[in-house]
Amino acid sequence: MKSEFQFIQYIQNRFSLSRVGDDCAVLPKNHDTDLLISADMLVQDVDFRLEWSRPADIGHKSLAVSLSDIAAMGGNPIWGMLSLAVPDFQWNEEFLDEFYEGWHFLAKKHGVELIGGDTSSTTGKFVIDSIVMGEVPKGRAIRRSGAKPRDHIYVSGTLGGASGGLRSLETTQIEVASPLISDLVTKQLRPRPQVELGKQLNALGIVTSMIDISDGLSSDLAHICRSSGVGALIDAEQIPIDPNLIAAFTDPDETLDIALNGGEDFELLFTVSPEDIDQLRSLDVVRIGTITEHADILEISQNGNPKELLPGGFRHF
Amino acid sequence: MKSEFQFIQYIQNRFSLSRVGDDCAVLPKNHDTDLLISADMLVQDVDFRLEWSRPADIGHKSLAVSLSDIAAMGGNPIWGMLSLAVPDFQWNEEFLDEFYEGWHFLAKKHGVELIGGDTSSTTGKFVIDSIVMGEVPKGRAIRRSGAKPRDHIYVSGTLGGASGGLRSLETTQIEVASPLISDLVTKQLRPRPQVELGKQLNALGIVTSMIDISDGLSSDLAHICRSSGVGALIDAEQIPIDPNLIAAFTDPDETLDIALNGGEDFELLFTVSPEDIDQLRSLDVVRIGTITEHADILEISQNGNPKELLPGGFRHF
Repeated sequence: MKSEFQFIQYIQNRFSLSRVGDDCAVLPKNHDTDLLISADMLVQDVDFRLEWSRPADIGHKSLAVSLSDIAAMGGNPIWGMLSLAVPDFQWNEEFLDEFYEGWHFLAKKHGVELIGGDTSSTTGKFVIDSIVMGEVPKGRAIRRSGAKPRDHIYVSGTLGGASGGLRSLETTQIEVASPLISDLVTKQLRPRPQVELGKQLNALGIVTSMIDISDGLSSDLAHICRSSGVGALIDAEQIPIDPNLIAAFTDPDETLDIALNGGEDFELLFTVSPEDIDQLRSLDVVRIGTITEHADILEISQNGNPKELLPGGFRHF
Repeated sequence: MKSEFQFIQYIQNRFSLSRVGDDCAVLPKNHDTDLLISADMLVQDVDFRLEWSRPADIGHKSLAVSLSDIAAMGGNPIWGMLSLAVPDFQWNEEFLDEFYEGWHFLAKKHGVELIGGDTSSTTGKFVIDSIVMGEVPKGRAIRRSGAKPRDHIYVSGTLGGASGGLRSLETTQIEVASPLISDLVTKQLRPRPQVELGKQLNALGIVTSMIDISDGLSSDLAHICRSSGVGALIDAEQIPIDPNLIAAFTDPDETLDIALNGGEDFELLFTVSPEDIDQLRSLDVVRIGTITEHADILEISQNGNPKELLPGGFRHF
C-alpha cells in the first residue's frame, strides 16, 4: 500500500496537477503579488491527543502548521479559515471557545484574520482543516525545486525539541514536571512558525529552495532533493540539536536520531548558493551541509565518515 | 447547547469576524476582480454514508456543495483543494482513485483545477474538507444581505428531490429500483450545482440577495431574511415541488414539507426588485413569494391563508 506521500505523488501524476507538491499553492493575484494558499488536516490521535493538549493548544497548533507553510514559501500570511468536524461529546461552548481563543491569540500576533470555514458534528474523531492564505511578491515564492549542486544547506533554530516533547508525553519514564521537559513539551504542543525569518529570507532574494521541517529533517531534505533533482550531504556535528533534548535524552545517538527524523519543529530548511552566503550573517541560521549532484541520495558525515541517510520522517502515534 | 448555526454566529460576534457568514468569503484580488473562497466539511455518517455512496459519488458531492457556494455569490469557480482524513480501512488505491475521479469529472465540466490540500489517515470517520476558489467582478459578489421589502423571491429548478432521495435510501418501504426513485436518489448522491445560472444572474445585475438551498428552503430563506433584516411571505402553491417526489410520496402535506424543509437540492434562492423582474423571463426560475418588512418572520400562504413558517431545516441522519 502507498504511503501518504506516494499517494499524493500518484494523484498528482494521474490528474496532471502542476500546482500540487509544494508547501503552498501559488496563484496569480495582481500585477505585484501572488497569492499563497495552504491546507493542513489535523486529526485527533494522529496529529494531537486530547489527553495531552488543552483546546487552546490545538487551536494554536492548527494555525501554526499552516503559518509555517506560508513561511516556507517566504510569504506573508493574511487570512485563515477553519473547518472543524467536532465529536458530539466535545460539542460544548467551553471546548470550542478555548480552541478558537488559541487560534486567535496566534493569529493576532501575525495579523491573520479568520474569514470563513465550516463546522460539522461527527461521531468520529475531532478533525481540523486549517487553511491559511498569504501574499508574496510576484514570482518570488520560494519553492522546493531550486536547489543546485554546491548550494549550502541551512536550518533555523534547533531541531528535535518537538519530537522529544512527544516522546516525553508518550512515556512515564521521564518526569514531565521538570523545566527542561516542559520546554520540550511546549515545542510539541505550541510550535512557533518562522514567519518573520521566511519573509527576511525572501527579501534577501538569495534562497534557492526552502521547506519547513514538519516531517523531520531527513524527510524534508529528501523532499527538496527530489523536487530539485539533486542530493545532499549533511554534517552530523553541525546539526543544531535542541539543548534541552541533549540534557533530557543523554544517549547522543538517540538525540541525533530524534533531531534527524523527529518532525514538527517547524524550523526552516533552505539552500543558498556559496556566492551569497555572506548575506545570511545576521540571521539565526546554521549551515548543516551541501547540495550534491547525486540525485535523490542523502548522505550524512559523522566523524569524517559519510554514509547514506534514509529519510526516517515523522512517525505518527 | 448551541446549534452549529448559533455557534458560528457566536464565534463571529466574539472575534468580530466581518467576512464570515455568507456562502463564500470575498477577498480583494485585483482592480477588476474579487476572489471568492468557500470551505465545506463533509463527514461520513453525517453528510454521506459509505453504504449508499460509491466513492465517485462522494468525490462528486464534495465538489458540488462548494461549487454551489460559488454559484450562490454569482461567481466563476476556478481552483479547488481537497483535505482528506481517510480511515485506515479505506486507505486503498481503488477507493481513493474513484473518489478523486468523481471529483475530477465534475471539476472538468466547470473548468476547476485541483491545486492542493492535505491527506491524513484517521482511526475515525472519513472526513473531507472541500475548498473552492473563484472569481467575481469587483464589488459584484451577490450576498445574503441585500433583500428589500417588496422584492420578489425566486427559486431555480425543483425542490425536495434530494431529501426525497435520502428518505428513499433510509427506508425499505419504497422500491429503490424504480426509475423515479432512482432519479431522486441521484439528486441526493450527485447534486448539480447551479453555476451557470449564478453567473447569468450576476451578469444581469438585478439580484438583491442570493443563497443556495443546502439546509432547506425555509432555513435558507430565514438566512436571507436575518442577513437582510426583512421577512418573507411565500405561496405554498408556487413552490416547484420535484415531480418525482410527488409521484413517489403521494401525501401532498408530506411532499410540501419535504420541499420546504428538506435540504441539499443546491438550487438557487434569490430576490429581485419588482421593477427588474422582466429580465428574468428567459431563465428557468419560479417566483414563490415576496419579501416583507416583518424582520425575521417567515410566512407561508396556503389556500389563501397565511400562517407563520418556522424554519425546519436540514436534519442530519
